[in-house]
Amino acid sequence: MYLSKLFIPILKENPSEAKIKSHQLMLRVGMIKQSSAGIYSWLPLGLKIMKKIENIVREEQNKIGAQELLMPTIQSADIWKESGRYNDYGEEMLRIKDRQGREMLYGPTNEELITEIFRASVKSYKSLPQSLYHIQWKFRDELRPRFGVMRCREFLMKDAYTFDLSDEDAVKSYNKMFFAYLKTFKRLGLTAIPMAADTGPIGGNLSHEFIILAETGESKIYADKRIFEVNTENFKLNDESLNEMRKKFDLYYAVTDEKFNKEDFDKKVIKNNHLITKGIEVGHIFYFGDKYSKPLNAFVDLQGGKKVAVKMGSYGIGVSRLVAAIIEAKFNNNVMKWPLSVAPYETVIIPMIKKNDNSNLKKAENLYKELKKNNIDVLLDDSDESLSAKLKKFELMGIPYQVIVGEKSKEDLFEFKEIDKESENLTIAKIVNKVISEKKRIDL
Amino acid sequence: MYLSKLFIPILKENPSEAKIKSHQLMLRVGMIKQSSAGIYSWLPLGLKIMKKIENIVREEQNKIGAQELLMPTIQSADIWKESGRYNDYGEEMLRIKDRQGREMLYGPTNEELITEIFRASVKSYKSLPQSLYHIQWKFRDELRPRFGVMRCREFLMKDAYTFDLSDEDAVKSYNKMFFAYLKTFKRLGLTAIPMAADTGPIGGNLSHEFIILAETGESKIYADKRIFEVNTENFKLNDESLNEMRKKFDLYYAVTDEKFNKEDFDKKVIKNNHLITKGIEVGHIFYFGDKYSKPLNAFVDLQGGKKVAVKMGSYGIGVSRLVAAIIEAKFNNNVMKWPLSVAPYETVIIPMIKKNDNSNLKKAENLYKELKKNNIDVLLDDSDESLSAKLKKFELMGIPYQVIVGEKSKEDLFEFKEIDKESENLTIAKIVNKVISEKKRIDL
Repeated sequence: MYLSKLFIPILKENPSEAKIKSHQLMLRVGMIKQSSAGIYSWLPLGLKIMKKIENIVREEQNKIGAQELLMPTIQSADIWKESGRYNDYGEEMLRIKDRQGREMLYGPTNEELITEIFRASVKSYKSLPQSLYHIQWKFRDELRPRFGVMRCREFLMKDAYTFDLSDEDAVKSYNKMFFAYLKTFKRLGLTAIPMAADTGPIGGNLSHEFIILAETGESKIYADKRIFEVNTENFKLNDESLNEMRKKFDLYYAVTDEKFNKEDFDKKVIKNNHLITKGIEVGHIFYFGDKYSKPLNAFVDLQGGKKVAVKMGSYGIGVSRLVAAIIEAKFNNNVMKWPLSVAPYETVIIPMIKKNDNSNLKKAENLYKELKKNNIDVLLDDSDESLSAKLKKFELMGIPYQVIVGEKSKEDLFEFKEIDKESENLTIAKIVNKVISEKKRIDL
Repeated sequence: MYLSKLFIPILKENPSEAKIKSHQLMLRVGMIKQSSAGIYSWLPLGLKIMKKIENIVREEQNKIGAQELLMPTIQSADIWKESGRYNDYGEEMLRIKDRQGREMLYGPTNEELITEIFRASVKSYKSLPQSLYHIQWKFRDELRPRFGVMRCREFLMKDAYTFDLSDEDAVKSYNKMFFAYLKTFKRLGLTAIPMAADTGPIGGNLSHEFIILAETGESKIYADKRIFEVNTENFKLNDESLNEMRKKFDLYYAVTDEKFNKEDFDKKVIKNNHLITKGIEVGHIFYFGDKYSKPLNAFVDLQGGKKVAVKMGSYGIGVSRLVAAIIEAKFNNNVMKWPLSVAPYETVIIPMIKKNDNSNLKKAENLYKELKKNNIDVLLDDSDESLSAKLKKFELMGIPYQVIVGEKSKEDLFEFKEIDKESENLTIAKIVNKVISEKKRIDL
């Protein structure tokens, strides 16, 4: 893609309305545009990143055998009355009357709807376990939407639901999701700590939040530093190994303020290992047993004919929020670097274009063709800005690899720079090789 | 995928509430489930097909240089008041009040919002042309939703919008979309005829509907048969060739009843070439000039400083509707055959499993591994139903290639059948080869 063709409204200054760095950056480099309070359009650059995140989330769900379906955004109030949550749910639920006067709502979550889908078709213990997920827009009518897509009203989430016959089986399903979450966040270049969480209004008795560390986070966290040393590479997708994995994590104290108890913390963690900071919640998993299956009548027949309410869990990942969360984690000292797995482009070519001299642009175009030929997703900045203005811009756009075609490039050598590292002069072949081998390493 | 693992609630009988064959089939083989009037959940089988359609639509938009972005589902009423459509739009618009009492709505279309995005960032003629699209759920509060996803309330559409400096340039953009539409429908295995259409309440002066023939269609159509003879392969993505293409199509009379004029029809088309039938609208393109850019103030600066309202067009494809439309076109004599490009699975393996004899299942599992190894997306029916029940089921599911592991298979030969064709006995290698070469042919 040539920058001049890309629909990317870049701002000269940080927008004053944005309070945190992800919100500033996303507006500044034209990733999003607010359309009304807490509701955003995703412009090409932002959408491309979000789609890559969505796809990694999807792949890791598929790997553990979860199946994708898609529930609608608009739901009938009826099933919410059946579960008893229609009145309990506060003003955050966007309630709607259709032209016939029927009570509808924009789904803030989907336990009711998925349970209804399940109960309509699954009748026997033989069809269990089931693990279903969808990736869909949700709406929560926040009183004070803020921080851009971090706390907005319309947002994209992956929500999975598992159905099992017994608590014991359900924990196995829970552990699989726990595993998938660790792998997902790792592929996104994030270190997410699973933290024992309060089960909150959604109910149940086993729950973890996945939190990434960030000073701008809304969750206060208290942890044993050593939790970072757990090597998730050691675990495999089988019940025994996943059980080991859970035990390993349970060894270390890690909670948000909701569950925090000072006495407990001091007793279990020596002062030296205390980690007290803030974080951003990017995932949340719950086991809630028959909380919904009982009122909604989701029973299956056992072998003898006895009926039993299925045991359910729900598992969320904030897909649109992750775009901002990655920025909070990776945007430091005014330099952004997207992990290659979700980068909007894999490489940018930055020619220094002088008046009446397009020789660098010509070289850049050749380079562009060569990288394209090797399936590298590349952006070429064909604008007539000064080189320093271009370099400044790309420190914000965060494309991980740059090829600068300027004074340092001569004959067949070009200045190649990985953001945050020293530049070196390389041939086209070496540049291609570098990018391709890194893509292979992370399995792109 | 093993059928026993797939979440696919198959019904024994056609559901009585469904009046047309696509609606019947989609419920019958567990592609969708109604959640409330005119609102559906997409189950794994249906979603997989829809995603493939969505992706073909996306690829063809990208090929003509359109850029993807994503506008939200919920919009503020403000910009609709600015364009003057808030009051004009009838009860089909789902109007919502949020907790602050602000007037919102679930987008039934996006001319206002895209114009607002455009005007906020594009200021100069130098940035034109622009072609932007999104694929998003829309809501129209139909008084009588019917025919399943064919006329439902929440539906998935691709909507593109083009912005040009002059009518002349705008026609070039229009022709590109016309071309992309022909290619899109062709890849979906459909013959869609472009028909001169009434511009309707959306306004403007140049418009085509893309219609596929189907007796269950809601549009009555009148055409010159010879329009089917236009070979779209002859045209290329450049202004001149596309101009030729448009002229070619304009030679032949083809309109829906809105534009129909009997005298005109009889004069322009000899009796023998009369085609009077029904069809399903799967796409619609409009050129409407400055209808929205003027009231919404989307002006750009010309070279001398003069300002001019940009010329806009809009271009829709009904993505979720296409799932049903393909069924209407391809489901005949109770046998469905999905085009390979959008098939839920590329091949199904159907072993005849007898009690106390799992030798066929074993063979089927080996076959499965072999096909998987060759990147063929394969389903294995490991259920204990009778072979005839299985075959009947797969006539409905419409997976284009079947491998039947039953009495006719011996040693290294298996019964291979393309739906609608005679079966033949082939080795695994030959089967793999057949499927792969067909995938290559259609560029999968």
